[in-house]
Amino acid sequence: MRHKLHIPDYIAGLKQGSIATLSRAITLIESTRAEHQQLAAELIDAILPLTGNAVRIGITGVPGVGKSTFIESFGMHLIGKGKKVAVLAIDPSSSISKGSILGDKTRMEQLSVHPSAFIRPSAASGSLGGVTYKTREATLLCEAAGFDTIIIETVGVGQSETEVSHITDFFLLLMLAGAGDELQGIKRGIMEMADGLVITKADGQNIDKAKMARGEYARALHFLPPHPSGWIPEVKICSSYEHSGIAEVDAMIEKYIQHQTANHYLVQKRKEQNLFAFQRLLNEQLRQVLFSRPGLKEQILQLEQDISAGHTSPYSAVRKVSGLI
Amino acid sequence: MRHKLHIPDYIAGLKQGSIATLSRAITLIESTRAEHQQLAAELIDAILPLTGNAVRIGITGVPGVGKSTFIESFGMHLIGKGKKVAVLAIDPSSSISKGSILGDKTRMEQLSVHPSAFIRPSAASGSLGGVTYKTREATLLCEAAGFDTIIIETVGVGQSETEVSHITDFFLLLMLAGAGDELQGIKRGIMEMADGLVITKADGQNIDKAKMARGEYARALHFLPPHPSGWIPEVKICSSYEHSGIAEVDAMIEKYIQHQTANHYLVQKRKEQNLFAFQRLLNEQLRQVLFSRPGLKEQILQLEQDISAGHTSPYSAVRKVSGLI
Repeated sequence: MRHKLHIPDYIAGLKQGSIATLSRAITLIESTRAEHQQLAAELIDAILPLTGNAVRIGITGVPGVGKSTFIESFGMHLIGKGKKVAVLAIDPSSSISKGSILGDKTRMEQLSVHPSAFIRPSAASGSLGGVTYKTREATLLCEAAGFDTIIIETVGVGQSETEVSHITDFFLLLMLAGAGDELQGIKRGIMEMADGLVITKADGQNIDKAKMARGEYARALHFLPPHPSGWIPEVKICSSYEHSGIAEVDAMIEKYIQHQTANHYLVQKRKEQNLFAFQRLLNEQLRQVLFSRPGLKEQILQLEQDISAGHTSPYSAVRKVSGLI
Repeated sequence: MRHKLHIPDYIAGLKQGSIATLSRAITLIESTRAEHQQLAAELIDAILPLTGNAVRIGITGVPGVGKSTFIESFGMHLIGKGKKVAVLAIDPSSSISKGSILGDKTRMEQLSVHPSAFIRPSAASGSLGGVTYKTREATLLCEAAGFDTIIIETVGVGQSETEVSHITDFFLLLMLAGAGDELQGIKRGIMEMADGLVITKADGQNIDKAKMARGEYARALHFLPPHPSGWIPEVKICSSYEHSGIAEVDAMIEKYIQHQTANHYLVQKRKEQNLFAFQRLLNEQLRQVLFSRPGLKEQILQLEQDISAGHTSPYSAVRKVSGLI
């Protein structure tokens, strides 16, 4: 068994940028043991002054769009500019399939072995606060360890993208060229959530198709309501294979950060994200307390069945429960 | 003071299609008095077998798009087909401005006096369950009173549209021609929420612009991810002034209902809407219970300030509260 670390050990290690400490700290926050959770909460509060200086980028897209190869190219480009890049991968299905994103890690050949990079799949399922709660804390730990770009990768087919948009500054949607059909896999609402679109695999015979798709998506985005911040999402094309267009994606994100910093929107957004997380955690906590009372969980599940069957209305059902709270 | 009605009185009156009874029933469910709420819950449960047979249509659009005149035209068209039309208007700002939608009623000249129509603004603010909770119950009462089309009108600039999409079958977005600028007032996400778009004021010199906009929006919608049900949102143009295009909007909604009935999506959607409402009401109820404990509300507000200021993380804040729950 390893030597137990205390808060000051963690902080010292993170300040030195120790990957070993960072890994152990993430393991700590992912632990479901009560003593670990207590320690994790203290650690997170203690490192808060060291956080907030990274650019947090959410990346999503359907399987096959080339997320791993894009992140490999993009990450290596950032490292070439002197950046330190952390990649946190969320796979909502990981509790069943295990390690499909761990498999990705092997596809990020250069990035996965580079000393300026840190790649880690994120424990997703069943944790308090939704699939991304632990990822939020992991982001803070990466920032404390000196990473200045945090990439949070998710599969664009479930609910995790909405969640990722709640913990990132910039939300990037990867798309394939060939309008229409490839949207089948993408959840509604993601398009409007995106701060930028990148059409991947713009190489070889695919280039013309990619350029055409770029025009079409830019046009489509023009017909979506504008972001409250005034940011207009851009569409880029790139080839991870040929390493083309990657710098343009980087430039788009930099432009966005400058734009959102100048209008104070970034600070405001992060503040709202934190308050939203608190509200949700509080709701879940309350639900856990409620469900722990004898018989109440069963009654709630029964009422949910009655509602489904049309025997009672949502409001009446709540009235029946509230006498027992 | 009026004679007090009991559940059987309400049911008898609603079954006869009595507008007077319907009005009183809605007033009852809007009441905040505990005894009224108890009675309202019993009434709603009692009438559930009489509900569910109407088409529930949500209509939104920015101020100036011509919602009232559209509803006047559309409603009269439906009545001409032998339908009974109820219009429930939600104005999230009504607690401040009072009656801006009541003002609308006078703009629905024919509809407001027709015996087959029922128009009522909805008490929006401050009620448990969000702005539309009471509207959900009012919808059920209208259905019990024999209305087969329920139109729920809301202003497309706040959060009430999302709420309306949670209590309706079909969500119709009214737009003005003249691409781009008019989107400024529309909240992001509404476009993807729409089951159909209608470009209003397609008359006189505006017709060509409207036709062009129809093509552009149809194209834009093509680039949005498809509805899970397989429904492809359509774009229509109409003129409430010239009564043109109204039948096409009606046909679109009928086609939608047939499509969603055939694939069982409509039943499933309503079931999910009810369960969602229950979850949310339960959360709010829990929050009320929590906030009623001495000092706890103040502590939660303090923690929210600490989170905003970056002094504590959402998770730590919840830990501090949960010991007190």
